[in-house]
Amino acid sequence: MTNTDDVCRPPAEGVPAFPPPPRAAAERVRDVRTMLGREIDCWVATVDPATGAPHLIPLSFDWDGAALLLATAERSIAGRGLASGTGVRIALGSTRDVVMVDGAVETIATADLDPAAADRFAERTGFDPRQTSRRYLFFRVVPSRIQAWREENELRGRDVMREGRWVGTDG
Amino acid sequence: MTNTDDVCRPPAEGVPAFPPPPRAAAERVRDVRTMLGREIDCWVATVDPATGAPHLIPLSFDWDGAALLLATAERSIAGRGLASGTGVRIALGSTRDVVMVDGAVETIATADLDPAAADRFAERTGFDPRQTSRRYLFFRVVPSRIQAWREENELRGRDVMREGRWVGTDG
Repeated sequence: MTNTDDVCRPPAEGVPAFPPPPRAAAERVRDVRTMLGREIDCWVATVDPATGAPHLIPLSFDWDGAALLLATAERSIAGRGLASGTGVRIALGSTRDVVMVDGAVETIATADLDPAAADRFAERTGFDPRQTSRRYLFFRVVPSRIQAWREENELRGRDVMREGRWVGTDG
Repeated sequence: MTNTDDVCRPPAEGVPAFPPPPRAAAERVRDVRTMLGREIDCWVATVDPATGAPHLIPLSFDWDGAALLLATAERSIAGRGLASGTGVRIALGSTRDVVMVDGAVETIATADLDPAAADRFAERTGFDPRQTSRRYLFFRVVPSRIQAWREENELRGRDVMREGRWVGTDG
Protein backbone atom coordinates (compact mmCIF):
# COMPACT_ATOMS: atom_id res chain seq x y z
CA MET A 1 0.00 0.00 0.00
CA THR A 2 2.62 2.53 0.98
CA ASN A 3 4.33 2.24 -2.37
CA THR A 4 5.24 5.80 -2.78
CA ASP A 5 5.89 5.72 -6.48
CA ASP A 6 3.36 7.23 -8.80
CA VAL A 7 2.26 4.17 -10.68
CA CYS A 8 -1.25 3.13 -11.53
CA ARG A 9 -2.98 0.72 -9.26
CA PRO A 10 -6.47 -0.66 -9.29
CA PRO A 11 -8.72 0.86 -6.67
CA ALA A 12 -9.64 -1.07 -3.57
CA GLU A 13 -12.97 -2.82 -3.71
CA GLY A 14 -15.73 -0.38 -3.01
CA VAL A 15 -13.59 2.62 -3.81
CA PRO A 16 -14.57 4.69 -6.87
CA ALA A 17 -12.32 4.25 -9.89
CA PHE A 18 -10.86 7.68 -9.36
CA PRO A 19 -9.99 8.21 -5.70
CA PRO A 20 -11.37 11.36 -4.12
CA PRO A 21 -9.01 14.32 -4.05
CA PRO A 22 -6.60 14.29 -1.14
CA ARG A 23 -7.93 15.71 2.09
CA ALA A 24 -6.56 19.02 3.26
CA ALA A 25 -4.75 19.14 6.59
CA ALA A 26 -7.66 20.46 8.63
CA GLU A 27 -9.94 17.69 7.43
CA ARG A 28 -7.34 15.06 8.21
CA VAL A 29 -6.83 16.46 11.70
CA ARG A 30 -10.59 16.22 12.28
CA ASP A 31 -10.74 12.69 10.90
CA VAL A 32 -7.83 11.58 13.06
CA ARG A 33 -9.35 13.05 16.20
CA THR A 34 -12.63 11.33 15.37
CA MET A 35 -10.88 8.03 14.89
CA LEU A 36 -8.91 8.38 18.10
CA GLY A 37 -12.16 9.03 19.95
CA ARG A 38 -14.14 6.29 18.29
CA GLU A 39 -11.90 3.28 17.74
CA ILE A 40 -11.45 0.63 20.40
CA ASP A 41 -8.52 -1.36 19.02
CA CYS A 42 -5.22 -0.52 17.43
CA TRP A 43 -2.18 -2.32 16.07
CA VAL A 44 0.82 -2.00 18.38
CA ALA A 45 4.33 -2.55 17.03
CA THR A 46 7.15 -2.98 19.51
CA VAL A 47 10.56 -4.62 19.63
CA ASP A 48 10.97 -7.83 21.62
CA PRO A 49 13.69 -6.87 24.10
CA ALA A 50 14.80 -10.49 24.44
CA THR A 51 15.48 -11.07 20.74
CA GLY A 52 15.48 -7.69 18.97
CA ALA A 53 12.74 -9.01 16.69
CA PRO A 54 9.73 -6.96 15.64
CA HIS A 55 6.50 -7.68 17.52
CA LEU A 56 2.95 -6.77 16.57
CA ILE A 57 -0.39 -7.30 18.29
CA PRO A 58 -3.78 -5.64 18.43
CA LEU A 59 -4.63 -3.97 21.74
CA SER A 60 -7.58 -1.98 22.98
CA PHE A 61 -6.92 1.62 23.93
CA ASP A 62 -8.44 4.76 25.38
CA TRP A 63 -7.80 8.31 24.18
CA ASP A 64 -8.16 11.24 26.54
CA GLY A 65 -7.49 13.98 24.03
CA ALA A 66 -3.76 14.03 24.71
CA ALA A 67 -2.55 10.46 25.00
CA LEU A 68 -3.42 6.89 24.14
CA LEU A 69 -3.71 4.54 27.09
CA LEU A 70 -2.97 0.86 26.50
CA ALA A 71 -2.70 -2.09 28.83
CA THR A 72 -1.23 -5.52 28.54
CA ALA A 73 0.33 -8.22 30.67
CA GLU A 74 3.63 -7.18 32.23
CA ARG A 75 5.36 -10.35 31.14
CA SER A 76 4.02 -10.49 27.61
CA ILE A 77 6.37 -9.67 24.75
CA ALA A 78 4.46 -6.45 24.09
CA GLY A 79 4.45 -5.55 27.77
CA ARG A 80 8.20 -6.01 28.04
CA GLY A 81 8.78 -4.14 24.79
CA LEU A 82 6.63 -1.19 25.81
CA ALA A 83 8.35 -1.01 29.19
CA SER A 84 11.83 -1.32 27.72
CA GLY A 85 12.11 2.17 26.27
CA THR A 86 12.63 0.98 22.70
CA GLY A 87 9.49 2.77 21.57
CA VAL A 88 6.21 1.98 19.93
CA ARG A 89 4.42 2.60 16.66
CA ILE A 90 0.65 2.38 16.66
CA ALA A 91 -1.73 2.11 13.70
CA LEU A 92 -5.44 2.79 13.77
CA GLY A 93 -7.98 2.26 11.06
CA SER A 94 -7.33 0.04 8.10
CA THR A 95 -4.60 -0.37 5.50
CA ARG A 96 -6.50 2.04 3.25
CA ASP A 97 -7.46 4.58 5.91
CA VAL A 98 -4.34 4.77 7.99
CA VAL A 99 -3.59 6.69 11.14
CA MET A 100 -0.03 6.10 12.30
CA VAL A 101 1.13 7.27 15.71
CA ASP A 102 4.67 7.59 17.04
CA GLY A 103 5.22 8.58 20.62
CA ALA A 104 7.07 7.97 23.85
CA VAL A 105 5.78 5.36 26.26
CA GLU A 106 5.24 5.90 29.96
CA THR A 107 4.77 2.72 31.99
CA ILE A 108 2.25 3.01 34.84
CA ALA A 109 1.48 0.34 37.41
CA THR A 110 -2.25 -0.32 37.68
CA ALA A 111 -2.28 0.89 41.27
CA ASP A 112 -0.64 4.16 40.25
CA LEU A 113 -2.97 5.27 37.46
CA ASP A 114 -5.58 7.86 38.37
CA PRO A 115 -8.67 5.75 39.16
CA ALA A 116 -10.86 7.92 36.96
CA ALA A 117 -8.61 7.22 33.98
CA ALA A 118 -8.60 3.51 34.77
CA ASP A 119 -12.40 3.53 35.09
CA ARG A 120 -12.67 5.27 31.75
CA PHE A 121 -10.36 2.71 30.18
CA ALA A 122 -12.41 -0.16 31.57
CA GLU A 123 -15.65 1.34 30.33
CA ARG A 124 -14.35 1.95 26.83
CA THR A 125 -12.50 -1.29 26.30
CA GLY A 126 -14.66 -3.60 28.36
CA PHE A 127 -11.87 -4.96 30.50
CA ASP A 128 -10.21 -3.76 33.67
CA PRO A 129 -6.43 -4.28 34.02
CA ARG A 130 -6.78 -3.74 37.76
CA GLN A 131 -8.79 -6.95 38.01
CA THR A 132 -6.84 -9.37 35.87
CA SER A 133 -5.28 -12.50 37.30
CA ARG A 134 -2.03 -11.87 35.45
CA ARG A 135 -0.28 -8.65 36.39
CA TYR A 136 -1.01 -5.95 33.83
CA LEU A 137 0.62 -2.59 33.27
CA PHE A 138 -0.82 0.55 31.75
CA PHE A 139 1.16 2.34 29.05
CA ARG A 140 0.52 5.96 28.25
CA VAL A 141 1.61 7.10 24.80
CA VAL A 142 1.74 10.82 24.11
CA PRO A 143 1.95 11.21 20.32
CA SER A 144 4.88 13.13 18.92
CA ARG A 145 4.06 12.42 15.29
CA ILE A 146 0.82 11.38 13.64
CA GLN A 147 0.37 10.59 9.96
CA ALA A 148 -2.92 10.05 8.14
CA TRP A 149 -3.39 8.81 4.60
CA ARG A 150 -5.78 6.79 2.50
CA GLU A 151 -4.81 6.25 -1.13
CA GLU A 152 -1.50 7.15 -2.72
CA ASN A 153 -2.63 10.65 -3.51
CA GLU A 154 -2.65 11.30 0.22
CA LEU A 155 0.95 10.29 0.91
CA ARG A 156 1.94 13.92 0.45
CA GLY A 157 0.77 15.99 3.38
CA ARG A 158 0.24 12.99 5.59
CA ASP A 159 1.74 14.54 8.72
CA VAL A 160 -1.11 15.80 10.88
CA MET A 161 1.03 16.15 14.00
CA ARG A 162 4.73 16.92 14.27
CA GLU A 163 6.71 17.29 17.48
CA GLY A 164 3.52 16.90 19.44
CA ARG A 165 1.69 19.73 17.65
CA TRP A 166 -1.25 19.35 15.33
CA VAL A 167 -0.45 20.73 11.92
CA GLY A 168 -1.98 24.09 11.17
CA THR A 169 -2.53 24.98 14.81
CA ASP A 170 -0.49 26.63 17.49
CA GLY A 171 -0.65 23.66 19.83
CA MET B 1 -7.77 -6.71 22.03
CA THR B 2 -5.24 -9.39 22.87
CA ASN B 3 -5.94 -9.09 26.54
CA THR B 4 -5.64 -12.69 27.34
CA ASP B 5 -7.41 -12.60 30.64
CA ASP B 6 -10.89 -13.98 30.86
CA VAL B 7 -12.82 -10.88 31.76
CA CYS B 8 -16.06 -9.66 30.30
CA ARG B 9 -15.91 -7.19 27.48
CA PRO B 10 -18.61 -5.63 25.37
CA PRO B 11 -18.83 -7.06 21.89
CA ALA B 12 -17.56 -5.12 18.92
CA GLU B 13 -20.21 -3.19 17.03
CA GLY B 14 -22.06 -5.51 14.71
CA VAL B 15 -20.97 -8.60 16.61
CA PRO B 16 -23.70 -10.58 18.34
CA ALA B 17 -23.82 -10.20 22.11
CA PHE B 18 -22.50 -13.70 22.56
CA PRO B 19 -19.58 -14.35 20.22
CA PRO B 20 -19.84 -17.46 18.09
CA PRO B 21 -18.08 -20.53 19.45
CA PRO B 22 -14.38 -20.68 18.66
CA ARG B 23 -13.49 -22.09 15.28
CA ALA B 24 -11.85 -25.47 15.15
CA ALA B 25 -8.38 -25.73 13.67
CA ALA B 26 -9.45 -26.95 10.23
CA GLU B 27 -11.85 -24.06 9.81
CA ARG B 28 -9.21 -21.56 10.86
CA VAL B 29 -6.72 -23.03 8.41
CA ARG B 30 -9.29 -22.63 5.62
CA ASP B 31 -10.10 -19.07 6.66
CA VAL B 32 -6.44 -18.14 6.79
CA ARG B 33 -5.75 -19.59 3.36
CA THR B 34 -8.75 -17.70 2.02
CA MET B 35 -7.53 -14.47 3.53
CA LEU B 36 -4.00 -14.97 2.22
CA GLY B 37 -5.43 -15.49 -1.24
CA ARG B 38 -7.90 -12.64 -1.13
CA GLU B 39 -6.34 -9.73 0.75
CA ILE B 40 -4.22 -7.15 -1.02
CA ASP B 41 -2.69 -5.27 1.91
CA CYS B 42 -1.12 -6.25 5.20
CA TRP B 43 0.51 -4.57 8.17
CA VAL B 44 4.27 -5.07 8.21
CA ALA B 45 6.22 -4.68 11.44
CA THR B 46 9.98 -4.40 11.25
CA VAL B 47 12.82 -2.93 13.29
CA ASP B 48 14.51 0.22 12.02
CA PRO B 49 18.14 -0.89 11.74
CA ALA B 50 19.38 2.66 12.23
CA THR B 51 17.65 3.27 15.57
CA GLY B 52 16.39 -0.09 16.90
CA ALA B 53 12.89 1.39 17.02
CA PRO B 54 9.79 -0.49 15.94
CA HIS B 55 8.46 0.35 12.49
CA LEU B 56 5.04 -0.39 11.02
CA ILE B 57 3.52 0.28 7.61
CA PRO B 58 0.88 -1.22 5.38
CA LEU B 59 2.17 -2.90 2.23
CA SER B 60 0.53 -4.77 -0.60
CA PHE B 61 1.45 -8.42 -1.01
CA ASP B 62 1.03 -11.50 -3.14
CA TRP B 63 0.63 -15.05 -1.84
CA ASP B 64 1.65 -18.00 -3.99
CA GLY B 65 0.51 -20.73 -1.65
CA ALA B 66 3.85 -20.97 0.14
CA ALA B 67 5.14 -17.46 0.73
CA LEU B 68 4.09 -13.84 0.90
CA LEU B 69 5.79 -11.53 -1.55
CA LEU B 70 6.19 -7.88 -0.57
CA ALA B 71 7.99 -4.98 -2.20
CA THR B 72 9.11 -1.62 -1.00
CA ALA B 73 11.78 0.97 -1.65
CA GLU B 74 15.28 -0.25 -0.85
CA ARG B 75 16.12 2.86 1.12
CA SER B 76 12.89 3.12 3.07
CA ILE B 77 12.92 2.23 6.75
CA ALA B 78 10.87 -0.90 6.04
CA GLY B 79 13.08 -1.85 3.13
CA ARG B 80 16.22 -1.56 5.23
CA GLY B 81 14.58 -3.40 8.12
CA LEU B 82 13.40 -6.26 5.94
CA ALA B 83 16.83 -6.58 4.34
CA SER B 84 18.66 -6.41 7.66
CA GLY B 85 17.82 -9.89 8.91
CA THR B 86 16.07 -8.66 12.05
CA GLY B 87 12.83 -10.28 10.98
CA VAL B 88 9.27 -9.32 10.24
CA ARG B 89 5.82 -9.81 11.70
CA ILE B 90 2.87 -9.41 9.37
CA ALA B 91 -0.81 -8.98 10.23
CA LEU B 92 -3.71 -9.49 7.87
CA GLY B 93 -7.34 -8.79 8.44
CA SER B 94 -8.59 -6.56 11.21
CA THR B 95 -8.02 -6.24 14.93
CA ARG B 96 -11.01 -8.53 15.48
CA ASP B 97 -10.24 -11.06 12.76
CA VAL B 98 -6.52 -11.42 13.05
CA VAL B 99 -4.08 -13.43 11.01
CA MET B 100 -0.52 -13.02 12.31
CA VAL B 101 2.44 -14.30 10.33
CA ASP B 102 6.01 -14.81 11.48
CA GLY B 103 8.61 -15.88 8.99
CA ALA B 104 12.09 -15.41 7.61
CA VAL B 105 12.69 -12.77 4.96
CA GLU B 106 14.53 -13.36 1.71
CA THR B 107 15.58 -10.19 -0.13
CA ILE B 108 15.34 -10.40 -3.93
CA ALA B 109 16.45 -7.75 -6.38
CA THR B 110 13.73 -6.91 -8.87
CA ALA B 111 15.88 -8.17 -11.74
CA ASP B 112 16.36 -11.50 -9.99
CA LEU B 113 12.76 -12.45 -9.27
CA ASP B 114 11.16 -14.93 -11.64
CA PRO B 115 9.31 -12.68 -14.13
CA ALA B 116 6.13 -14.71 -13.80
CA ALA B 117 6.10 -14.08 -10.04
CA ALA B 118 6.77 -10.39 -10.61
CA ASP B 119 3.98 -10.22 -13.18
CA ARG B 120 1.62 -11.90 -10.78
CA PHE B 121 2.58 -9.44 -8.06
CA ALA B 122 1.96 -6.50 -10.38
CA GLU B 123 -1.41 -7.82 -11.43
CA ARG B 124 -2.59 -8.43 -7.89
CA THR B 125 -1.30 -5.27 -6.28
CA GLY B 126 -1.62 -2.89 -9.19
CA PHE B 127 1.95 -1.70 -9.12
CA ASP B 128 5.17 -3.05 -10.59
CA PRO B 129 8.35 -2.71 -8.53
CA ARG B 130 10.39 -3.27 -11.69
CA GLN B 131 9.09 0.02 -13.08
CA THR B 132 9.41 2.37 -10.15
CA SER B 133 11.66 5.41 -10.26
CA ARG B 134 13.05 4.65 -6.81
CA ARG B 135 14.85 1.33 -6.51
CA TYR B 136 12.58 -1.29 -5.00
CA LEU B 137 13.35 -4.72 -3.62
CA PHE B 138 11.13 -7.76 -3.35
CA PHE B 139 10.93 -9.59 -0.04
CA ARG B 140 9.77 -13.17 0.13
CA VAL B 141 8.44 -14.30 3.51
CA VAL B 142 7.94 -18.01 4.07
CA PRO B 143 5.75 -18.35 7.15
CA SER B 144 7.08 -20.37 10.04
CA ARG B 145 4.24 -19.57 12.40
CA ILE B 146 0.71 -18.35 11.70
CA GLN B 147 -1.88 -17.48 14.33
CA ALA B 148 -5.55 -16.77 13.73
CA TRP B 149 -8.05 -15.44 16.23
CA ARG B 150 -11.14 -13.28 16.43
CA GLU B 151 -12.60 -12.73 19.88
CA GLU B 152 -11.03 -13.75 23.16
CA ASN B 153 -12.57 -17.19 23.03
CA GLU B 154 -10.29 -17.91 20.10
CA LEU B 155 -7.01 -17.08 21.78
CA ARG B 156 -6.70 -20.73 22.71
CA GLY B 157 -5.89 -22.79 19.66
CA ARG B 158 -4.80 -19.80 17.64
CA ASP B 159 -1.75 -21.48 16.08
CA VAL B 160 -2.73 -22.63 12.59
CA MET B 161 0.87 -23.13 11.48
CA ARG B 162 3.91 -24.09 13.54
CA GLU B 163 7.43 -24.60 12.24
CA GLY B 164 6.16 -24.09 8.72
CA ARG B 165 3.49 -26.80 8.95
CA TRP B 166 -0.23 -26.24 8.94
CA VAL B 167 -1.78 -27.61 12.11
CA GLY B 168 -3.59 -30.87 11.68
CA THR B 169 -1.79 -31.79 8.49
CA ASP B 170 1.41 -33.55 7.61
CA GLY B 171 2.86 -30.61 5.72
